Amino acid sequence: MSSTAGQVIRCKAAVAWEAGKPLVMEEVDVAPPQAMEVRVKILFTSLCHTDVYFWEAKGQTPLFPRIFGHEAGGIVESVGEGVTDLEPGDHVLPVFTGECKECRHCKSEESNMCDLLRINTDRGVMLNDGKSRFSIRGQPIYHFVGTSTFSEYTVVHVGCLAKINPAAPLDKVCVLSCGISTGLGATLNVAKPKKGSTVAIFGLGAVGLAAAEGARISGASRIIGVDLNANRFDEAKKFGVTEFVNPKDHDKPVHEVIAEMTNGGVDRSVECTGSVSAMISAFECVHDGWGVAVLVGVPNKDDAFKTHPMNILNERTLKGTFFGNYKPRSDIPSVVEKYMNKELELEKFITHEVPFAEINKAFEYMLSGAGLRCIIKMDA
Amino acid sequence: MSSTAGQVIRCKAAVAWEAGKPLVMEEVDVAPPQAMEVRVKILFTSLCHTDVYFWEAKGQTPLFPRIFGHEAGGIVESVGEGVTDLEPGDHVLPVFTGECKECRHCKSEESNMCDLLRINTDRGVMLNDGKSRFSIRGQPIYHFVGTSTFSEYTVVHVGCLAKINPAAPLDKVCVLSCGISTGLGATLNVAKPKKGSTVAIFGLGAVGLAAAEGARISGASRIIGVDLNANRFDEAKKFGVTEFVNPKDHDKPVHEVIAEMTNGGVDRSVECTGSVSAMISAFECVHDGWGVAVLVGVPNKDDAFKTHPMNILNERTLKGTFFGNYKPRSDIPSVVEKYMNKELELEKFITHEVPFAEINKAFEYMLSGAGLRCIIKMDA
Repeated sequence: MSSTAGQVIRCKAAVAWEAGKPLVMEEVDVAPPQAMEVRVKILFTSLCHTDVYFWEAKGQTPLFPRIFGHEAGGIVESVGEGVTDLEPGDHVLPVFTGECKECRHCKSEESNMCDLLRINTDRGVMLNDGKSRFSIRGQPIYHFVGTSTFSEYTVVHVGCLAKINPAAPLDKVCVLSCGISTGLGATLNVAKPKKGSTVAIFGLGAVGLAAAEGARISGASRIIGVDLNANRFDEAKKFGVTEFVNPKDHDKPVHEVIAEMTNGGVDRSVECTGSVSAMISAFECVHDGWGVAVLVGVPNKDDAFKTHPMNILNERTLKGTFFGNYKPRSDIPSVVEKYMNKELELEKFITHEVPFAEINKAFEYMLSGAGLRCIIKMDA
Repeated sequence: MSSTAGQVIRCKAAVAWEAGKPLVMEEVDVAPPQAMEVRVKILFTSLCHTDVYFWEAKGQTPLFPRIFGHEAGGIVESVGEGVTDLEPGDHVLPVFTGECKECRHCKSEESNMCDLLRINTDRGVMLNDGKSRFSIRGQPIYHFVGTSTFSEYTVVHVGCLAKINPAAPLDKVCVLSCGISTGLGATLNVAKPKKGSTVAIFGLGAVGLAAAEGARISGASRIIGVDLNANRFDEAKKFGVTEFVNPKDHDKPVHEVIAEMTNGGVDRSVECTGSVSAMISAFECVHDGWGVAVLVGVPNKDDAFKTHPMNILNERTLKGTFFGNYKPRSDIPSVVEKYMNKELELEKFITHEVPFAEINKAFEYMLSGAGLRCIIKMDA
């Protein structure tokens, strides 16, 4: 039992007081975990587009002040009532979507969209009492997707914590909390390319490159990267991308360009941009008879996916995925093991590092499109 | 060797001289099979919507005179050069789409869309010499989808013939040549419902009821039939359909009706109408996380399949299928065995029988929507 168990912990957190304004380093009070909750000491966190999207809060109902952050690695400080799977000292990755292990989704082999703990970007409080565990001089500060890892300590539902190998370096495996697992799982769990097959990846950001990494691990013979930014191609080669298509360089639709390159279409495609036209191209560029297209990117509210039904009837498959179809508690520990046994390479995703005090720099890197993942070191 | 081998055979055939006009019983000359071809004595044939569609030839480039027919059972009379898989006396089902066993599709475990012998509704001649094997007083009569079974003898590419158990009654298993296998395979090979799952079937014609039969064989606990014609429900019960939804009876969209009936959606759906709005409903009515929708019905040229991408991203799967994903030569013999061992019930699909001379009655039954399959007996 840690000496802080049951006590309020005062620690540093980076608070977003307003949409789009730099985070402010504050002393926050973090209440003890309640039933089925766990308090975690965060050691490393990283920044993902989703943090930036909800921090910018464009066209959203704003929920501020808030503590963002959902890609992280930490150590359990104390556990609340009813928590039997974790104990102080366990190494964990918080995950923005959970696994209650009780609902129909958790009991289905095919789904990871837990009824209880499925991502909820509108809720800023804990499920147990509908309140926040964070406060500053009594003023509640909202949570973000149940993780709020831009704080030295945070409180997370036990269903949103993956217990991992304590030998795994948290400054590396923290990126498996969200984007990298999302892209990797889209390929390994959903697209499932066979050895020697051809794969197209739409969007060469961190998620797309993780999807390419999945194709590389699967032994794909050709990995065709599609992106509007030609600068991405050099970096993408490290992730196994063998060919590059910039839709801007062609007069004809990109699915036709890919069909010509591949004698009728690729075996698999993975869409990681969220642009609906890329989604449609990703579907139409797979080969008839056996092609599978997997959608990962999150679309705009008013988008419509539109294709001629014959494209479907000619034995193409279209699938969507969420968090790479990984169940956070059941599956993420094994993804960490893939890194530990050198099957999965994570270092190449990590392009920047900053101390916690300079967290706003991580936002600047992402907004300027520089690099892939910036690790924020809490104790530096 | 039969005494007719190598000779022209003169026999009866039902010739379509013009679009939409009753077939005319004629004496036709059937040339011997050329390389990779087989001449088959047809014993039983049945009528499928596709025959009627190309006989009506609405909005099509007409190809007449023509001998229609593609659901049938027969016996090999003689074989052409290079045919080693079949010999005179073998029992066969002609299939409108073939399996060359050499192309990328045939070599893929996932596809049955043979490059060489994929359905071609525009071609009225044989591949070997680009000519017809049928003639009347020297005038060529066109083939239809490589089968032309409305003739006592026909010539078919060896890749379009499934060799079946000679003990199987051809007057029953002939319906496996097209529609019944299409619906059955859509469920068994593509939707793959688990025991105890819920399945929605859109369209309760012969193909839809065969899809329901597949769900019944799979042990589905609820089979929801959707059709605009309420009269279909009584018959559908024989095929395992447990509940009926008529979209006309509801103010809200049918996918919402089904979601309410099933706590969020069915596990699997199979669309067998060809209406694009039914296709969209069939997709949107499957449960998030694990739902799979399979499209079977052939759409109009200008249709667009349209849905919000979030419906896909929430882990739904959309798949198209062609001939139930069966490879004609490799797989259809085992479907015949399913009938032989009483797993699959075919009698209930056969609602009418006519002698060959009265083949136009079969067209009348289909045009008036009466019954499911009409067997045409060639020797009666």
